[in-house]
Formats: sequence, structure tokens, C-alpha cells
Amino acid sequence: MSQFENVTIVKKANVYFDGKVTSRTVLFADGTKKTLGIMMPGEYEFGTDAKEIMEILGGQLQVLLPGEEQWTAISGEGEFTVPANSKFKLKVTAVTDYCCSYIQE
Amino acid sequence: MSQFENVTIVKKANVYFDGKVTSRTVLFADGTKKTLGIMMPGEYEFGTDAKEIMEILGGQLQVLLPGEEQWTAISGEGEFTVPANSKFKLKVTAVTDYCCSYIQE
Repeated sequence: MSQFENVTIVKKANVYFDGKVTSRTVLFADGTKKTLGIMMPGEYEFGTDAKEIMEILGGQLQVLLPGEEQWTAISGEGEFTVPANSKFKLKVTAVTDYCCSYIQE
Repeated sequence: MSQFENVTIVKKANVYFDGKVTSRTVLFADGTKKTLGIMMPGEYEFGTDAKEIMEILGGQLQVLLPGEEQWTAISGEGEFTVPANSKFKLKVTAVTDYCCSYIQE
């Protein structure tokens, strides 16, 4: 799916890490939410409330998921899932375009 | 208007200047288009096809509009209009969040 139809988009960006990570919030008719974001190169730690499915649309990064000791590399497209109420680390090595889905369980 | 409802958003970002300028395309039911974007600090020159209304949602920059000799400063929120088929320059000094409307004449 290359575009989302019949959605609401919040105009102002969400800005993190001095703007090195930014996103826009997309709200769906079924009450679900996604963010579409950009990460500039850098190292980041994020915390989740809901479970998150991170779809990498393009870029290059390594992710350290909670409970893991090995970093997972993604180059180009990819996807990983982060449990609710947890933390994960990213090492972003090229501008990365992503779509994050928030999953209420 | 803090959000756009009943719109289509293109999933993948538009990426310019090595990712220092990125945007997402929002398509409206009436056939019009806007982009919601982020500019990192830097100096940029852009060209227009359609007339553009640039609404600055937050940030800090100076703009040199076509035919002008003086730069115009915007801090926080602001707006400027660029004619079709022209060029304009920006000096962005803080992460800047914008909404660009493309006006078909």
C-alpha cells in the first residue's frame, strides 16, 4: 500500500532529538494510529507505550530490541516489532524513512 | 486548522538535500495538494512549478523571494508566497516545520 486514504493527518510534526527524528501522525477511521517519520543519522533510544511495528521504507540502521544482545541490521526496506512498555535502541547510519504502527492489545 | 481530515497521504517521504529537507505529500478530495515537511538547518535553493504558499508552523529561517534583494526573517510561525516557475532561497537556522500549498492558477 503506497498511500493511506480517508485518513486524518495532524498538521504539526512530532519533533524528537533536536529534530533529528521527526514524524507526522496519521489517524485512521477505525481508531488506529500510525506515524510517518524521518530519522537522520545518529544513535537513539526510544520507549514504547503500545506495541509498535516499525516498517522501514528506506534507509540504513541497526536496532537493538529489548532482551536481545545482538544488533539487527536493516538496509533498504525492513520491519521489526517492539513490545509494549519497553525500550529499544537504534543506530541510524543513513537518512531513514519509516512508518510506525501502534498496536493496542 | 490543526489537522487535515478525509485526505490521502503518500506513505514514502520526499527527500531533498541528503535528507536535510523532507516532506510527505497530502492529497485532498478537491484535487489539491499540500506537503508537510521538515527542514534541518542549512542553506537551500528551491524552484517552483505551481505557485506555492509556504506556511511556517515552527522554526527559524530567512527567505529571499524572487526579485527581492532583502531577506525576510521568520521566527516561530509565518507565511510567504512564491510565484509559479520561480526560484527562492532559504537560510534555515533552526529545525523548521512547514506546510506547503500548491496553487494551480
